This record gives sequence, structure tokens and C-alpha cells, in this order.
Amino acid sequence: METIEEENDITVLRRPTEYRPPLSWRTWLIGRPLPTADAPHQTIGKAIGLAVFAADALSSIAYAPQETLVILAAAGTAGFAYAFPIALTVTVLLAIVTISYQQTVHAYPGGGGAYIVARDNLGEVAAQTAGAALLTDYILLAAVAVSSGVAQIVSAYPALFPYRVPLAVGLVLFTMLANLRGVKESGAAFAIPTYFFLAMTFLTVGVGFFRYLTGTLGTVVDPPPLEIGAAVQPVTLFLILRAFSNGTTALTGVECISNGVTAFKEPRSRNAGITMIWMSAILGVLFLGITFLLGQIGALPSEEETVISQLARTAYGPPLPLPIGGARGGLYLATIAGTTIILILATNTAFADFPRLGAIIGADGFLPRQLAYRGSRLVFSRGIAALALIAALLIVIFRASVTALVPLWAIGVFLSFTLSQAGMAHRWWKVGHLAPGQEVQERGSTLRYEPGWTLKMVVNGFGAICTAVVTLVFAVTKFRDGAWIVLLLMPALVAGFFAIHRHYRDLAVHLSLEHYGTPPHIARHRVILPISGVHRGTLAALRYARQLSDDVTAVHVSMDPAAAESLRRKWEVWGEGIRLVILDSPYRLLLEPLLEYIEEIAAQRQPNETITIVVPQFVPRRWWHNLLHAQEALWLRLALLFKPGIVVTDVPYQVE
Amino acid sequence: METIEEENDITVLRRPTEYRPPLSWRTWLIGRPLPTADAPHQTIGKAIGLAVFAADALSSIAYAPQETLVILAAAGTAGFAYAFPIALTVTVLLAIVTISYQQTVHAYPGGGGAYIVARDNLGEVAAQTAGAALLTDYILLAAVAVSSGVAQIVSAYPALFPYRVPLAVGLVLFTMLANLRGVKESGAAFAIPTYFFLAMTFLTVGVGFFRYLTGTLGTVVDPPPLEIGAAVQPVTLFLILRAFSNGTTALTGVECISNGVTAFKEPRSRNAGITMIWMSAILGVLFLGITFLLGQIGALPSEEETVISQLARTAYGPPLPLPIGGARGGLYLATIAGTTIILILATNTAFADFPRLGAIIGADGFLPRQLAYRGSRLVFSRGIAALALIAALLIVIFRASVTALVPLWAIGVFLSFTLSQAGMAHRWWKVGHLAPGQEVQERGSTLRYEPGWTLKMVVNGFGAICTAVVTLVFAVTKFRDGAWIVLLLMPALVAGFFAIHRHYRDLAVHLSLEHYGTPPHIARHRVILPISGVHRGTLAALRYARQLSDDVTAVHVSMDPAAAESLRRKWEVWGEGIRLVILDSPYRLLLEPLLEYIEEIAAQRQPNETITIVVPQFVPRRWWHNLLHAQEALWLRLALLFKPGIVVTDVPYQVE
Repeated sequence: METIEEENDITVLRRPTEYRPPLSWRTWLIGRPLPTADAPHQTIGKAIGLAVFAADALSSIAYAPQETLVILAAAGTAGFAYAFPIALTVTVLLAIVTISYQQTVHAYPGGGGAYIVARDNLGEVAAQTAGAALLTDYILLAAVAVSSGVAQIVSAYPALFPYRVPLAVGLVLFTMLANLRGVKESGAAFAIPTYFFLAMTFLTVGVGFFRYLTGTLGTVVDPPPLEIGAAVQPVTLFLILRAFSNGTTALTGVECISNGVTAFKEPRSRNAGITMIWMSAILGVLFLGITFLLGQIGALPSEEETVISQLARTAYGPPLPLPIGGARGGLYLATIAGTTIILILATNTAFADFPRLGAIIGADGFLPRQLAYRGSRLVFSRGIAALALIAALLIVIFRASVTALVPLWAIGVFLSFTLSQAGMAHRWWKVGHLAPGQEVQERGSTLRYEPGWTLKMVVNGFGAICTAVVTLVFAVTKFRDGAWIVLLLMPALVAGFFAIHRHYRDLAVHLSLEHYGTPPHIARHRVILPISGVHRGTLAALRYARQLSDDVTAVHVSMDPAAAESLRRKWEVWGEGIRLVILDSPYRLLLEPLLEYIEEIAAQRQPNETITIVVPQFVPRRWWHNLLHAQEALWLRLALLFKPGIVVTDVPYQVE
Repeated sequence: METIEEENDITVLRRPTEYRPPLSWRTWLIGRPLPTADAPHQTIGKAIGLAVFAADALSSIAYAPQETLVILAAAGTAGFAYAFPIALTVTVLLAIVTISYQQTVHAYPGGGGAYIVARDNLGEVAAQTAGAALLTDYILLAAVAVSSGVAQIVSAYPALFPYRVPLAVGLVLFTMLANLRGVKESGAAFAIPTYFFLAMTFLTVGVGFFRYLTGTLGTVVDPPPLEIGAAVQPVTLFLILRAFSNGTTALTGVECISNGVTAFKEPRSRNAGITMIWMSAILGVLFLGITFLLGQIGALPSEEETVISQLARTAYGPPLPLPIGGARGGLYLATIAGTTIILILATNTAFADFPRLGAIIGADGFLPRQLAYRGSRLVFSRGIAALALIAALLIVIFRASVTALVPLWAIGVFLSFTLSQAGMAHRWWKVGHLAPGQEVQERGSTLRYEPGWTLKMVVNGFGAICTAVVTLVFAVTKFRDGAWIVLLLMPALVAGFFAIHRHYRDLAVHLSLEHYGTPPHIARHRVILPISGVHRGTLAALRYARQLSDDVTAVHVSMDPAAAESLRRKWEVWGEGIRLVILDSPYRLLLEPLLEYIEEIAAQRQPNETITIVVPQFVPRRWWHNLLHAQEALWLRLALLFKPGIVVTDVPYQVE
């Protein structure tokens, strides 16, 4: 249905495109392209919300207790006694962060990730720092969650141990494809596995405690070999702080809900807040319970078997009979399966949030704008692909080892916590200095005076200070383990973001039509026609060139005097009297003498003069025929492409 | 020094290019570019000629005896008794081929390779078959000679055994670089190593015979383990024929001199002929002598130590004292060094002849014409690079094993022998049917009546029959070892050559100006201007488009109605009244709707109508800025590049 409008002296023709993308291998892989109008919007309740947003946070109990023990193992089994006190401290920190984020959820009903809160309250540098921290955080979440998932699989099926890296990379690619296709973050797809995981984990912890209280728990049979260094170290404060740093990976993902407030049913802030409290409570209980039981059964951290696997097979072990219990019976396998699946869901969270944040930062002009374009399935395909690529690379480099990846991770998480809470504290200060009834609209939320602003500022401020201290503890204690990479990378990323932003800003200024007068009239049009021979293709280009201007020069680069002489004689017949320049090329180079000549002409150009290079472009019947030609026209065009002030015109000629 | 000529109403400006290629990493690697005028021409005498042309043929004694023994080893040490009789037969064949080629050298004083002889006498199919056979022959020569050279090195230094493949690939790349730089095929560079090799080999054989006659030769101390299959096979005719096939690799390279007759001093045919006889005599003596001695010392063929190494350390072994003799003393090392160097010279022969033949076939239009272009150092760089690439690939695939490579090789060699000799026989028949005094000029030589033509025809005919029989023996006995690859590849290559030729011929017909009238006048010029926004760049392109024609249409693909509306309002101000088409793109595709629109316009095109797409091309200040833009202009140009009837014009706009 075309519409033609005549308005203010111009004709505007609007028409819908009938073009439907054809079926291709991409259709098979990621599904039919979706029209823009298909973008879905639906809201979810608390129970589903818990499932959708908690996978990231809850999955951390699969690795946080293990990574705490890994560090303590350096002090031998004596070190393990410190695991439970450390877990208690981590849980306290979890409570502080949760309370602090409660206020964010209510203040930003439109979604308040660290990037948005920092942008509104702390300025661009803080916002881009939070952006860089979050992006690296999501990459590492994907790498760690997949690696931990593979570690669970390998615990149950030790024969797969040598294939950890390909398994993990395969899972990343699978998740990438699922997300390119577009995963609906709602409904049964998330609820069933999450609640299955919760049921199995609570059962395992419950059975463990029951047997502990009845004195029948025992210790791990055939524990994996303990991987410790040459000598057993003493228990130092530094060691305990390192173990604590690893334990805080339990907090990763807690902030997730604050990003996704809009996904909840109304009253959405309230629903999101309650869901967050539930999530933190479950996480805290499981983290403490598992850490306690691990100490009782004497579990040993190892790349070969996860402590979750050791706990499950001890809790469900004899005298419980097979196939339900027993060393590796049904309940054991169900626990491992649940843990693996929640870890893959956590990976999926990274694939949902990384491209979304990339699109926001891209739209703000601090990352390539292409990240904000939606792909054929309405998802941010470029961000998804970038995440998969970098995460797979990390997995390959760090051999899918959670222990190797963790030191890179938590700094970014806690840095974004700190920035987010500090931003919130500043927001309350601003709120407190508004007149009652006054409203200030910021990009992410609306400021209104609230009476209890001092307490709220103190709560968020305390959260910011706690997480800032933890960030510092990380930077110092994990520096040598890999945190230095992040400490170098973060400023580089932020600098890069600003360099990108500068480019977009400059470009906008230069392209702006403000204060732009009428462009000068083109007074002279010089046309240069490079020819390699005189044939029908050349003559078609000549005809086109003469139509452009009366000032046409044909140029031939000569490597062979005899060929040049023959060309010159033909030109006398067919050249229509057009001037011919023959450039001798003693080094048998074609492009360079031609470019030199063109540059010489361009150097004498007047401001109101245009130079056009008319390039005869041979179009063969079959693609492989291109290999039989030196493609000088193509190289010439590439060489001239980015040359200012020169217009390049391709005149095709084809063999029928 | 520019010259301007006015002649027949056209102005021709000739000027030398002052452009000198700048120094770059290529200069460092392969040397300064050479001007065309520097092409050298010099002739050589018999002694130097032997050195230059014999490396290929003589080097074959490094592997031909060994590869004979490898096959016989399947029958256990009992099989080795057949080695000497086989060597005698090979030597008889060598004599037949040498006599046959004598006549070629005299008949083609301008150089008579198998390709040229077949082209003149047997037609294009035979010529292209010979061409394909020779090209594969050169590739395998390079692979085999380098692999055998590495096998010699490894024999002397067994610690290098695991590094055979990288060593061999490294040598190929080294030879490639030397040839890209341009090796002078003359003088001391060839003569010294060749004569050093001959001196050392004659000394080894001489000492061996002296000790054999005095009864002090003994057998190989610590021979390498014999690599035989599960069960010892009986000696069958098939086995002997297979061993014979391998032995005939001694004949490779014999035809070399017939290619290079022009390199000799006058009387060049005579000089070349005498040199060839010397070469064959030396080759025959050494081949027989070495094979005989190998039988006496009980040498065992092995990938770990070559039989040449076993012979040298036995001949020079105790009681000769170190450092001169002894197990691995000076004379042993000198023999291995000489053998290795001659093998590398043989590789160099492949690098000299493959590009030259590729250039001849390319100039004939049966291979891409680019092969006939000389590179910056006046050599056929593309052919050299292609040879290195394929040879390196073969070495990697066949793990630098001479035994694995040999079955692929000799078929091509003997096929080209057969075609060359059969061509010669036909030539004598043509000569015999000329009237005395009559002269016929062919492309490669001149035909004149000669009285003794019947005998000459019989000699070449006999040579052709012998080599044809050997080719057949190869095809049957080596079929399963790898000859099937060559038997499949050869017809495919010939078919490919003819497909290429057909393309060039058709193109020439279509581009020809014969029967070509004046092209129709351009009556209508439609200009389409795709725009993504209204800014200074768009307006520069608009200005250019309006200069081309009054029939300009601006086209915008809209993914976002709000953006389209904003563009439309800007166009009302800045669009100079030009018609604007807005294409809705529900699938957020940019290129496809635009291409669909352009194709629709093109479909309505009249014969005397031209369509030009004016593409605004953003030129950023720094290269990495390109990554920050979606490069729609670039993709559009690529999509339109090969579309017939549509002229594409890039109008650059740059940010200063």
C-alpha cells in the first residue's frame, strides 16, 4: 500500500517493503526473522520472578563454598576450620547488600542497574566504570558458571574429565544459539529447573543435617586427592582474607533483580523487593548449611570432584540403598543434575544481561552503536556473539578451571556494588535537599522529597563502604592470582569508552547542519578514466565519462612499450578525441603510478572542483572467473575509497 | 621527461613515472624491486651447465636406491637380492630415455620441454596433459627433495627426528624466499656444491669398492630397525614391479636440460647434448655402484637413517680413524652435507621450473594470466608462492616421508616423458613428409626435411613405448599406494585448464571491437541517492547527484517511524525539492529493501537509460573509527558491485 504525499513542494513516497527474508541456514539455526512489531512484553509474579532472576545468585552455592576451601587447603586440613566463620561473615555481608539494594528497587521502579544509578548520581566516569565492571562481570559469570557446571558433570562422570574444555565451550555455543534465537525469560522453562534445584539442594542439606544429628553422617569415602603446594602454610590473616574474597562470590547475582524491576507485576517495586529478600534468605541458609556440612564430612576441594558431589554422595550414601541412595544413586544424580542445570541458567542470565547493557551503553555512544541494533530475532545479536566469543576464549585460556577464573571475577562485581550504593547514597542526599512537593526528573527515576532520607542515605552509605572495603581486600589479596589483569583492564576499558564517545560527539558536530550555508556550486568537473586496453568495456566507461563532463582524461599505465603503442593506435580510432596519458611503469606496478598521477591532479584541485575517477569494472559470468583476472579495478577502488575529495564511479561491463 | 604528441587529432602525453617503490618489510625480505630493464641474459658452458641442470637428476641417487629397497623389504632380507638386477634395468631405461632426449635437444634449440613438444606435435589436449603432469611433477620434486634432504640431516643428527616436518617446511619457505629474491642459476653458487657432492659421492663409492675388493668392507654396524609389515611376503612379480617403479625415480630430472638449451653457449644444442650424456653416465654409474654396495653392507631402508648414511659410515668406518673416518667422522659428515645440499639445489630446480612453465601455460590462456606477470624482483612471484604453498601442504600431510610421497610422483614424470617422445616421433614423421628444401615454422621449432628421419622416428617411438609401458606399470602397481590420487587429479587438472581457456576465449570475443558500431547515446540518466540521515555528508552527495542528472530520487530505509518522520522534516528544508522515497523495513534490514527497490527500477530500464547509485561514503579520521559505524555504504557497494547495468558512485565525506 504505497502512499504519495505532496507537502511543502516535495514529494514523499512511503511504501511498505514486501521483502520477506528468505529461508537459509540461519533460519534453521536460530529461527525465522521476526518483524519489529512482534516484540513481546509480559510481566511475571513473585514465584516465577524468583526462578527467573535467582538462577544467577543461587547457582553461586555450587562454587562459593568450594572456592573458600580451595584457599584454606593451602594450610592443610587445619585451615578448613575457618570455613564456617568465613561463611558467616559472607552471609552478614549478603544481608547488608540485600538491605541496601531494597532501596534501589523501590527508588528505580524502571530498573536500576549499577550503570543507570551511577549515571544519574555520580556522573559519566563512574557510570562508565560501572559499565566496564558489569560487562566484565557478565563475561566472567558466563565463563565461571559454565566451567562449574562442567565440573559437576565431570564429578558424576569422571571419564569426561579430559574433555572439560570442549564441553564448556560447547555449552557456551549452545547457550549463544539459544539466545540468538531468543529465549523467553519466563514461565516453566525457568521455574521448573530452578525449583527442582532448590528441592534437591534443600533435600541434600536436610538429609545431611538429619544424619549429622543422628550421628550417622560419616565422612567422604575416597575423597579426591588434595591439591596443595609443596609445604603446608600457616594460617595467616592474609590467607583468611583470600578465602573470604573467594567466599564472597556467593553474592554475585544478588543485584540482578534491581535491573529487572519492570518485569514484575504491579506493585512491581514491592514484588521485586520481596522476591529479592526471599532469594537472599534462601541463598544464605543454603550457603551456611552446605559450608557447615562440608566441614563435618571432611570434603576436599578438587578439580576432579566438586564438594557438592562429595556432599551429595555422603548424605545419600550407605546405609541408604541403591537405586535411590547409595554412593552414586538416583538422588545423588538428581542433585548433580539440578546443580548443573541451574549453572547453565546462570550462564543464560549473562547472555540476557550483557547484550542489554551493551545496547544501553552503545545507545549512549560509549560503545559501537551497532550493539544497540536488534538482530533478525529481535535480540541484540552482536552483543550475544561478542559475549560467547570472549567467554569461550577465557575458558580455553583458563582450561575451564573455576579456581583460576574466580580471582578475575569478584572485583568487578563488588566495584559495581560500591558504585551503585554510593550513587544511591548521593541520591538520598539530593532528595533530602529538595523542597517538599518539588519533583526532579532524572533519566532513570524521579526525585521527590522523602522524610526519612537520612536513614536511607546511611543504609546505602554503609553498604557502599562495606562493599568498597571488600573490593579493596580483593585487589590486594587476589592481586597476584589474576586480579591485576582486571585492575589494568578496567581503566583501559573506561578510557576506550570515552575515546569512542569523543568520536561520536565530534562526528555529530561535524555533520550538523546548524550554521551550514548552501554548498558551493560545482564549477569544474574533471574525469579520469584509467584503461588497461581498448575494448567494449572501456568504451562503455568512456561513454559514461563523457556524459559527466567535457574534461575527460584517459590514463594507461604501461609496463610494455609494444602494448602501449598498440593501445595508442586503437585509441586514435575509438578514443573520440579524448586526451590519453601513458604512464611508464619500469617496476611493473599498476596501482602506484596511477595513484601518484591522481594525487598530483587532486593536489591542484580548486575548492569548487570535483574529481571523478571512472573505473571500468569487469563483471564475469561466474564467480570463479574473477580468479582469472588480476582485479586491478577492485584494488584501485579500495586504494581510492578513503581518499578525501575524490569520487569513484564503477561502470560495470559484463560478458553475457 | 614528459613528451606530448599531437597526432590524428588526439593528444597523447607520455611520461616516465618517478615513483620508486618505498622500502618496506618486503624489501628487507626479498630485496629492492628491480626495473624491467634489469632482466639478465647470459649463457653458460658445459661444466657449469652440468652443475646447474644436473642437481635435479643427480640428487635422485639420494632416494632412488632407498625407495627400491623399501619395497623389497616386504619380502624380508631375501628380497634385497633383487635390488641390483632392478637397478640394472633402471639404468638401461635411463640410457633409452637419454638417447631419445638427445634428439629433442637438437630438434628444439630454443628449448623443448614436454609441454612445447606436445603442443607443436600432438595438439592441445596432449600439451595440457603434459603441462598438468609437469606441474604436479615439480610440486612433488620439491616435496620429495626437501623431505629426503631432511632425512639425511636426521640420519646424521638423530635428535632432530621429531622435527622433520617443521624442518622440511622451513627449508621450503627458505627456498621460496631465495627464489622470490631471484636466484641466479649460474656460476659458483651451483657449481661448487654440485661438484662437492659428486666428489664426496665418488669418494664414498670408491672407498667402498676398494674395501669390498680388499675384503675389509664389513656390514652396517647398528642398522636401523627394519620396518616391515606383520608377515614376510613372498617375492612376487608384482612386488618386483613395485620396487622397479620406485627405482625409476632415478630418472627424474633427466629431461631438465632439454628445457634449458638456450642457456648454453653456442653451439648450444651440441653443448646441451654432451652435457646430458655426461649427466646420465654419472647418474647411471653412481646408481649402480651405490645399489651394489648397499647389498654388500646389508643396509636396511628406514625413515630414521637413510641408506646413504649407512653406506657412508660403513665405507669410512673403522679401521679408518677419527676425525677423518670413523663411525661419524669428517668424511661421513661431508658426504651427508653434500647429499643434503644437492637435494636442496634440486628443490631449487622445482622453484625455477614450476613458475616458468606456469607462466608459459598462463600466457597460452590455460592458467590464470596473473601467473605470467613478473613480480618486483622480475621473477614469477605468484607461481613461486603457489609451489611453496602446495609443497608445504604435501609435506605436512605426508609427514615429510619420501616413501609416502614417491607413489604420487613418478607417474607424472613418465607421462611427460611419453608425451614428449611420442611428440618427437610424430615430428619426425612430419619431417619425413616434407619436400626437401621446404620449411615449416612451428611455434617451438622449424621443420626441414632430414634424410635419416625413419631411424630418428624409431628411436623416439621406442623411447615413447618404453616410458608408456613404465607409466602403465606405475598406474597398476602403485595404484593403492597413492597413484590413484594422481590418476584422478590429472584429468581434473586438464579439464580445469580447458575451462579457463574457454573463459578467456569467450571474453576476447565479447570484448572485441570488430563489427562494433557506435554505442547508443545515453537518453536518460536516473540517479538514486540512498540516505540514512540528513547531514553535511548527505548534502555533498546530493549536490553531486544533482549535477549528474535532473532525475534524482533520495531513498531512505526506515526501521523506526519516528526517525523517518524526523528525516522527512529535515528533507523538506534541505532536500532541494528532490523526491524522497521511504521504504518501511519491518525486519530491520537495511540492504535488502534497498536492493529490492533498485532492482525494481533496473527492471524497467530502457536500453539507452543509465542508472547511477550515488552512495555517500563516510571517511573517518582514524582507521578504528570504521569499527564504530555499521558500514552500510560499504556493504551496499559490495552488493551492487557485480550487478549488471548499474553504475555505483562513491561520494566521500570526511571529518577533518
